[in-house]
Amino acid sequence: MTKKTKVGLIQLKISKNRELNINKAIKQINEAAKKGAKIICLPELFLNEYFCKVENHSNFKYAEKIPGKTTHMFCNLARQLKVVLIISLFEKKMSGIYYNTCVTINEKGKIISKYRKIHIPDDPGYYEKFYFRPGNLGFKNVKTKYGEIGSLICWDQWFPEASRLTALKGSEIIFYPTAIGWHPKEKRKFGSTQLDSWVTIQRSHAIANGIFVAATNRVGYEKKGNRKIEFWGNSLIIDPNGKVISRLNSKKSGILVCAIDFKKVENARQHWPFLRDRRVDAYRDLAKNSKND
Amino acid sequence: MTKKTKVGLIQLKISKNRELNINKAIKQINEAAKKGAKIICLPELFLNEYFCKVENHSNFKYAEKIPGKTTHMFCNLARQLKVVLIISLFEKKMSGIYYNTCVTINEKGKIISKYRKIHIPDDPGYYEKFYFRPGNLGFKNVKTKYGEIGSLICWDQWFPEASRLTALKGSEIIFYPTAIGWHPKEKRKFGSTQLDSWVTIQRSHAIANGIFVAATNRVGYEKKGNRKIEFWGNSLIIDPNGKVISRLNSKKSGILVCAIDFKKVENARQHWPFLRDRRVDAYRDLAKNSKND
Repeated sequence: MTKKTKVGLIQLKISKNRELNINKAIKQINEAAKKGAKIICLPELFLNEYFCKVENHSNFKYAEKIPGKTTHMFCNLARQLKVVLIISLFEKKMSGIYYNTCVTINEKGKIISKYRKIHIPDDPGYYEKFYFRPGNLGFKNVKTKYGEIGSLICWDQWFPEASRLTALKGSEIIFYPTAIGWHPKEKRKFGSTQLDSWVTIQRSHAIANGIFVAATNRVGYEKKGNRKIEFWGNSLIIDPNGKVISRLNSKKSGILVCAIDFKKVENARQHWPFLRDRRVDAYRDLAKNSKND
Repeated sequence: MTKKTKVGLIQLKISKNRELNINKAIKQINEAAKKGAKIICLPELFLNEYFCKVENHSNFKYAEKIPGKTTHMFCNLARQLKVVLIISLFEKKMSGIYYNTCVTINEKGKIISKYRKIHIPDDPGYYEKFYFRPGNLGFKNVKTKYGEIGSLICWDQWFPEASRLTALKGSEIIFYPTAIGWHPKEKRKFGSTQLDSWVTIQRSHAIANGIFVAATNRVGYEKKGNRKIEFWGNSLIIDPNGKVISRLNSKKSGILVCAIDFKKVENARQHWPFLRDRRVDAYRDLAKNSKND
């Protein structure tokens, strides 16, 4: 296994037209691969506008089987381009059971990992608890030709438990397909703090675990009724010292291709030996309800 | 219990003269109290130069009983000033059993909480594993007249597990008595990244838990043989949105007195409801050795 690779993040403005979204994603993946990206990650639920803006039963029509038509298409693409692909889908397991799921496909076109979003938000405009059963497959690490990788999804990124458990499984990089943005009414007053918190918490996962972190977000306005979100882009890659080494802006679709060297993980963990000093004997209350729950 | 209070952090340049250090600390505590501080925290092991720079058996002479002469003195001071004091001491439990311990004294002069540092570093110049048995009292929260407070110590600040468990016990603010600095030889190349990582990880605890974070550090050069550390000061207070609301610089001793409103904790947790969405059922591996251990 080589220690150097290139990572590609696809930042997308999503339209109402699903075919257009797929074609755009494929085009961008091709371009990232052409620039040498070996592990390519797409934003959360990139096939459609972010339907969780509202609670509407008709949106369940977007759910699909895994494996299914979409994974089949992206498996072919991964094989053609010889890249690892991380794609986020609205999974229908059976009637009544739906997940926010992330699939990792290897360079031979095979699905090698499936992660179901464990932390589900419910916030004005992010009504995910209405759609998704909380993930039941645990945290995931998968060995690929290009490195050991974990994937988490959006809201998971606020939970240090999630990044820690993924890192402990062996991941050297964690990918976060994401759909996060500003409520336009709040942006002026809270916008910069919110974005800064988002960057900071992800940098903290890199620091605490000595791990690369890569988040890819959608971008631009989406509107449904009176519910409007401006997705803030800012897809980024952070090194194991917590330094942002590559970042897109909040303005438009784009590709980020970034060379990374997994030896930095080893180096960071030797110099900041936090994993050595964890006190598992003192942590049991993390895994149960506290007296305050 | 009032929701507004004032917090005081004492940043100290520590000398070889223990009496001088104590007198300076007492003077600064008085000054902070005069400015209205109700909860006052001192740096880690502020009675002496940071003796863990080297492994030397003669340094065990600095260890003392708790309660003992020093706590007696600071209990009197707390009662006189009607303030809560958080002081960090080298605790001798019995011959062979020593801890890096933090004591909280209430405004009546009573010791109301004792925390023993759970994560013990061992790094060139920070040979704490030589001196301290890892803390065995668990994480701590204590109700005071001025708010519910937790205390952790220095190296603990790199572990999200520690801040999470303290927050879950009910703390609205976590204090970190600290002794951290630059190796002068590394400062030029890594200094700003190291300081930035330190600020970032503490901001992340505030964000992830919707809690105030206050860290107070020593400052200035200390030398023992060829071992030299420049303690970087930068004592700071962070609000529950992760914003640094008050901060000293890296140049000299000083007092930081900062008004805080614990209602911000409630507000942050309503708007960023991470505690609601923790998945204790998915975290059990945090509290045991992983396959990689």
